[in-house]
Amino acid sequence: MLTSTDPRTGAAIATDLEATPVEQADAVVRAAQAAFEAASTHDRLWRAGLLDAIADALDANRADLVAVADRETGLGAGRLEGEVGRSSFQFRLFAEALRDGGYLEATIDHAGQTPLGAAPDIRRLLVPIGPVVVFGSSNFPFAFSVAGGDTASALAGGNAVVLKAHSSHLETSALSHAVITAAAAEYGAPDGLVGIVYGTEAGRVLVAHPLVRAVGFTGSLGGGQALLDIINARPEPIPFYGELSSLNPLIVTRGAAEARAAEIADGLYGSFTLGSGQFCTKPGIAFVPDGADGDAIVERIASRAAEAGASVLLNERIANSFDEIRDRLVATGTVSVLARGSDGVDGFAAAPTVLATTAAQVTAEVTEEAFGPLIVVARYGDDAQIVSALDAVPDSLTATVHSEPNEAAAVAGMVRELAPRVGRIVFDGYPTGVRVSWAQHHGGPWPATNSQHTSVGVSAIRRFLRPLAYQDAPEAQLPPELRDSYSGIPRRIDGRLVLD
Amino acid sequence: MLTSTDPRTGAAIATDLEATPVEQADAVVRAAQAAFEAASTHDRLWRAGLLDAIADALDANRADLVAVADRETGLGAGRLEGEVGRSSFQFRLFAEALRDGGYLEATIDHAGQTPLGAAPDIRRLLVPIGPVVVFGSSNFPFAFSVAGGDTASALAGGNAVVLKAHSSHLETSALSHAVITAAAAEYGAPDGLVGIVYGTEAGRVLVAHPLVRAVGFTGSLGGGQALLDIINARPEPIPFYGELSSLNPLIVTRGAAEARAAEIADGLYGSFTLGSGQFCTKPGIAFVPDGADGDAIVERIASRAAEAGASVLLNERIANSFDEIRDRLVATGTVSVLARGSDGVDGFAAAPTVLATTAAQVTAEVTEEAFGPLIVVARYGDDAQIVSALDAVPDSLTATVHSEPNEAAAVAGMVRELAPRVGRIVFDGYPTGVRVSWAQHHGGPWPATNSQHTSVGVSAIRRFLRPLAYQDAPEAQLPPELRDSYSGIPRRIDGRLVLD
Repeated sequence: MLTSTDPRTGAAIATDLEATPVEQADAVVRAAQAAFEAASTHDRLWRAGLLDAIADALDANRADLVAVADRETGLGAGRLEGEVGRSSFQFRLFAEALRDGGYLEATIDHAGQTPLGAAPDIRRLLVPIGPVVVFGSSNFPFAFSVAGGDTASALAGGNAVVLKAHSSHLETSALSHAVITAAAAEYGAPDGLVGIVYGTEAGRVLVAHPLVRAVGFTGSLGGGQALLDIINARPEPIPFYGELSSLNPLIVTRGAAEARAAEIADGLYGSFTLGSGQFCTKPGIAFVPDGADGDAIVERIASRAAEAGASVLLNERIANSFDEIRDRLVATGTVSVLARGSDGVDGFAAAPTVLATTAAQVTAEVTEEAFGPLIVVARYGDDAQIVSALDAVPDSLTATVHSEPNEAAAVAGMVRELAPRVGRIVFDGYPTGVRVSWAQHHGGPWPATNSQHTSVGVSAIRRFLRPLAYQDAPEAQLPPELRDSYSGIPRRIDGRLVLD
Repeated sequence: MLTSTDPRTGAAIATDLEATPVEQADAVVRAAQAAFEAASTHDRLWRAGLLDAIADALDANRADLVAVADRETGLGAGRLEGEVGRSSFQFRLFAEALRDGGYLEATIDHAGQTPLGAAPDIRRLLVPIGPVVVFGSSNFPFAFSVAGGDTASALAGGNAVVLKAHSSHLETSALSHAVITAAAAEYGAPDGLVGIVYGTEAGRVLVAHPLVRAVGFTGSLGGGQALLDIINARPEPIPFYGELSSLNPLIVTRGAAEARAAEIADGLYGSFTLGSGQFCTKPGIAFVPDGADGDAIVERIASRAAEAGASVLLNERIANSFDEIRDRLVATGTVSVLARGSDGVDGFAAAPTVLATTAAQVTAEVTEEAFGPLIVVARYGDDAQIVSALDAVPDSLTATVHSEPNEAAAVAGMVRELAPRVGRIVFDGYPTGVRVSWAQHHGGPWPATNSQHTSVGVSAIRRFLRPLAYQDAPEAQLPPELRDSYSGIPRRIDGRLVLD
């Protein structure tokens, strides 16, 4: 039997789950393929209904889900309740996208004369790819796990999903899966459309499986690389969508420090300690001006950290890694411990920690991501020092700039430096708290992700679709959305976008 | 000095080109990066003008380009004149796409209350990625080479391009590059925006270069795999867009055979021998019904092949490979030589060849792609035999069905079988001759390509773009297309697509 752990105490939690045997993992994928084919007879409006039914079921089971997850993750009921809401919201947003139909990118070029001569009729839309494997992440037991955005976007696209449950929240995964499959069954979805496996070996089987058409993963760079190695050894490559690592630099201008020192200090403290600092968008390094205004910010962050109780981390590996990386950062000799909260004694406790350095001393050694409540504050004299330091900061999901309106020209210069390095630029706010919406992009250059796609927001669906074109097809052989008579979705017809 | 070869005679053609030294290849990439940054101050309308200027220059130099290419490729003036036209058309089509602006996928979610609470303003569009490396292909010295679609789409996206000239048409590459760079310089583009290198070693340097952000490649599976191995060894992975291999199955139903035997035979003969059979979309296997109507098709194709003179292949490697694969196919013992045209004596000659087998005997051994004028005709009894045989056919860029209107139900069943295996389904036509248009998709599951993208048509631009999101950005810090006041391009605003 597998066990998970109560991170508040370190005590084992017995489950009635077992590591999925290899042959069973294979059977789960085969069932997903069969369900994928069976579900392909339904249209996108049917799938919208399925997503809504899953969303309703998540909401209806919120209390049970939160109770199980709180015991396994220590994240607290308030945060977890919000996260279940985020999960159901994601399913409903993808249902909305399905009804809108724009995600199909339906495009029609009628036959006709062109500068290159007579041309055939060509029509294209996006179609599902098949069974998709989703690795649940540790830090969001709902929104980036079994009931998460990868599952919602893959199902929305018309694919089947096979989940690899994260070892840190096995019971949460099992209950989430039970809630989803019960709702899907009641809705009339084919059995096996959403499968699940437990255990590292079963996860490897999924990634290597010939029927699997893509893998979604949110986790560590090392974990992602291990899966990429399996994919690179496949006879047929498949896309791997990895969201891997991010330091998320945050810059406070002199103007902002002068105008809003306390507000920024409080916001930054809240952001780097949110969820015990276990957000992929946690600001891991902040550039603060030298001088009195910057001192005020740093002193306030430090005093808040010093007074703080211990945070609870998700599991032993994360807790040990946090301590090791903090110690490595300090051992560089270019970073000093400015403040350290209570270490705690029970379970996987970690002390909120503020490290100090200067922009000139920011090297690759001090930009290692510490997954947990730790921030490096780098003091700078001028913008050129920040730009130099950014070369040592790995490309990230986000970058943030706090500034005042009269600094617009300097900020524009900084944005030009930041843009090539990140997927989202935040102004006068904090990168944690990723809005789920149409415009969102949660991705970035390596090592933030290894693709040009997002894992949050409507366009995440595109990862699990591929284009299919029809040439001179008789009307009856076309998908309905590509027929001349169809209306109600945006389509590009003979080069011009038409709304419906 | 490098030499290329006249494929009609096998004689060497002296050039004044040299293999690019490693340090020079590095300098070309650095110049591309600098040009990329300099060009980023221009908007998309400026780039549209650049693409039009390049298109005009290609047209103006058509005669010279064709003369040089004909000597190096043996493809003939008529075909090559058309191909220069295709190249200039591609540049103009991407200019049109830039003016349309829809390719930016501009999306705006205003700040506001949501079911998850107050949400920030998020805006997203697609931005260029940096220097892109393009490997010219052998078989389209213009449309898929220096002046090809990868170059046009990468430049359209706002990137710089570094070309690896194909060894089969070095002078064509050099002249194409000279025409493009002269037009770009006259237009006012920064030096280095389109660079070029010669030689295998320089190509490797490009793929491994830290400043390079993507690679476009059209060529053999083996060549693609060699480049993928270099990419997999990079510290930072980058996308590799490979168009690699395709057998392009074509199915003739009983009804079509009865109704149009001679027409189909002539069309199929023309398609598999077009460009000496050196099209990635060449139909490499045709399923023809047994019985008299199928016999009529096969006999007519065979007699046309038997009477045909030798085709000229592009280079010695392709010619040798063609002979080897033909011999391997015959050596399986399940394939017989139905017809073979003249072998020719000079240069890289190849005989148009028709091989015969049955659908039941179609195994992986007889579905090896022979790049050249060769087709395998597989006779079948019923559709189930075709479906079984398709499991031995590698996934492809295209599949084609010839049928009659009264067979619609059976055709629908066949389309369901074909759809997961290909990127384009052709009805009652031929897969060669890929329309360049908005709806086109030239891609397919592995080994046709290794991505979910197209290399032909407007959406090819998406390969060389990435999303960038802005959160709560002041109006002045936003790209113009994301400002509230902007109009004239399609945008999705608060979840609703708006045309302008």
